[in-house]
Amino acid sequence: MKVLVIGGDGYCGWATALHLSNRGYEVGILDNLVRRHWDQQLCIDTLTPIAPIHQRIQRWKDLTGKSIDLYVGDINDYSFLIESLLEFEPEAVVHFGEQRSAPFSMIDREHAVLTQTNNVVGTLNILYAIREHFPDCHLVKLGTMGEYGTPNIDIEEGYITIEHNGRKDTLPYPKQPGSFYHLSKVHDSHNIHFACKIWGLRATDLNQGVVYGVLTDETGMDEMLINRLDYDGVFGTALNRFCIQAAIGHPLTVYGKGGQTRAFLDIRDTVRCVELAIATPAEPGQFRVFNQFTEMFSVSNLAMMVKKAGNAVGLDVDIQNMENPRVELEDHYFNAKNTNLLDLGLQPHYLSDSLLDSLLNFAIKYKGRVDKNEILPKVSWRNPGSAKIAK
Amino acid sequence: MKVLVIGGDGYCGWATALHLSNRGYEVGILDNLVRRHWDQQLCIDTLTPIAPIHQRIQRWKDLTGKSIDLYVGDINDYSFLIESLLEFEPEAVVHFGEQRSAPFSMIDREHAVLTQTNNVVGTLNILYAIREHFPDCHLVKLGTMGEYGTPNIDIEEGYITIEHNGRKDTLPYPKQPGSFYHLSKVHDSHNIHFACKIWGLRATDLNQGVVYGVLTDETGMDEMLINRLDYDGVFGTALNRFCIQAAIGHPLTVYGKGGQTRAFLDIRDTVRCVELAIATPAEPGQFRVFNQFTEMFSVSNLAMMVKKAGNAVGLDVDIQNMENPRVELEDHYFNAKNTNLLDLGLQPHYLSDSLLDSLLNFAIKYKGRVDKNEILPKVSWRNPGSAKIAK
Repeated sequence: MKVLVIGGDGYCGWATALHLSNRGYEVGILDNLVRRHWDQQLCIDTLTPIAPIHQRIQRWKDLTGKSIDLYVGDINDYSFLIESLLEFEPEAVVHFGEQRSAPFSMIDREHAVLTQTNNVVGTLNILYAIREHFPDCHLVKLGTMGEYGTPNIDIEEGYITIEHNGRKDTLPYPKQPGSFYHLSKVHDSHNIHFACKIWGLRATDLNQGVVYGVLTDETGMDEMLINRLDYDGVFGTALNRFCIQAAIGHPLTVYGKGGQTRAFLDIRDTVRCVELAIATPAEPGQFRVFNQFTEMFSVSNLAMMVKKAGNAVGLDVDIQNMENPRVELEDHYFNAKNTNLLDLGLQPHYLSDSLLDSLLNFAIKYKGRVDKNEILPKVSWRNPGSAKIAK
Repeated sequence: MKVLVIGGDGYCGWATALHLSNRGYEVGILDNLVRRHWDQQLCIDTLTPIAPIHQRIQRWKDLTGKSIDLYVGDINDYSFLIESLLEFEPEAVVHFGEQRSAPFSMIDREHAVLTQTNNVVGTLNILYAIREHFPDCHLVKLGTMGEYGTPNIDIEEGYITIEHNGRKDTLPYPKQPGSFYHLSKVHDSHNIHFACKIWGLRATDLNQGVVYGVLTDETGMDEMLINRLDYDGVFGTALNRFCIQAAIGHPLTVYGKGGQTRAFLDIRDTVRCVELAIATPAEPGQFRVFNQFTEMFSVSNLAMMVKKAGNAVGLDVDIQNMENPRVELEDHYFNAKNTNLLDLGLQPHYLSDSLLDSLLNFAIKYKGRVDKNEILPKVSWRNPGSAKIAK
């Protein structure tokens, strides 16, 4: 089965492409490599020294004998997208190819507009391209648990049955996203849902939680296959960032009270979830939503766990509650369902001391590459344009 | 009070600008005039001969002594937007400045992308501009009842209180829009809601029904002030289109079974609703939603009413149920609330025989301007790119 991974040079995309290749899928990667460019523009870098995309792919072939087709270009360029699809002829498209950082989208107006146009138009282009040339192709789209925000009721998977004034309907779950990035994913979800309805396309929206970890069976095979690991204030996400902070003796930066509860998963489960979604496609016309996470933690709890694991490997770890650069509830109800992927056979890797040990040791190995100036958050939700960010 | 009407050269915008000017508001119009350009590109035209914007405004001044400031340019050009705002210094911004046709957005990929980027980026720009320079300014944004779709439960005004698994919350009402245009309005609503939350902006989203009628107290004062009236398959909306079809002896084009029920209002109520929203602004941080309509009709019922009124003035009127170019339910529950504007004092003009008489006579007066080739719908929801539309 032929699977095109759009955004296959990124953190989740690269791990997914290798996993699918390893599992026998015929894999193509389509990527505009702009994520590497943004690193340069923002003067930040992944903790891990990632190889150029063509070298990574060559190394994978040398090690496993499996080849991955590469299409370098932008899905916002419709001609390029069409040409690549016609050449590769995908049976499934996995779409990671979006600007994926909330702080990036909140830097200023330009970054908000870039994020929303890039993500929304890219996805519209994919929908039109699939409809025109591969109407049976299954679109597996990366959404985010952040689309839901923090409602005071249980979070269902994409839809909720509402009884109201004596009548009943099952409707799209109400969305309360917390950044212009998260909003772009909500816009995508509405657009894809509509395309499935009018054109009979098949799509699965993976509302993913915060991903942690760096090693998968495949990316761990060789240093040339190493995955990116972000710790900076723009692209670094909670748990990965905490481990790197612990490794270099920087206080763990908890925003506000730390009572913010979020959904999390190990990157080894990310790649498995995508595989499960592909293996059992949505029906024609179906817009299927899976909440893709395995556990829920508050940010404070995560910091405490990293502190404990750090102490166990001899690190002295402080936790620093700092002013929250975001606008979000810091003490709230949060209970999200995630049975759809478990029902398909997902066997979760839960966050454990051994995983934290391994992540911490990984961070220690590369700590010489850390730029301490890039750790603290600079982007303020309330004051766009205030961040001193290189452009 | 100074009110900037963005899109003030359009059907609702022009009538609103004159009404507010007449009521003593200091009015500015900002418009890129692209609506006139699209008419030319699509080889269509308003039934009524509308004067160029500067001549309309001059005539208004000659007749009433009231002047209206004019800013010709595009809100997608942020420098232009900022310069205009800084010069005019609005206390309220009424935002009609969007691509507002569902069929236009469904012509092909290019028109879908144009609609979503134009509308979403324009509104993002307004939000950033207000935040930066006029944080107390009240944004009155034109949404659409079409954001809700046709759920099987009552439609509330923007929010719904949901009880679920023993807990309760009031959340944004779930949206099921029926075109890439309607989707753009849903995207806007989410973006504006977020901006109110994080920046304390004040906004009112007017989820307007289908507007009918052409004369208001102000546009009826002089032929040079005449409002546009669209009957073509792209920009013409149900009731106005039916009256013009009746006037020229064309069958009334009912799409599908005609059981589609929608919300409607007289353009004299549109201008009054906007005034009511401005006069009682939203609170800082509040994203207020009003459902702006006065009555609900099925498309078949509307056609029957026009047929009856046509017969009464001596017209022979046929009704033609034709293949539905859209994808929508043709037989469904529809019950929407509209108490917010009534509570503020709206006194509706209900659809009446006299209104239909006057609309029909208006259409008869200008029927020599009708291009019969432009009456039937050419844009198919299912087959983008299939319409033979001049570009």
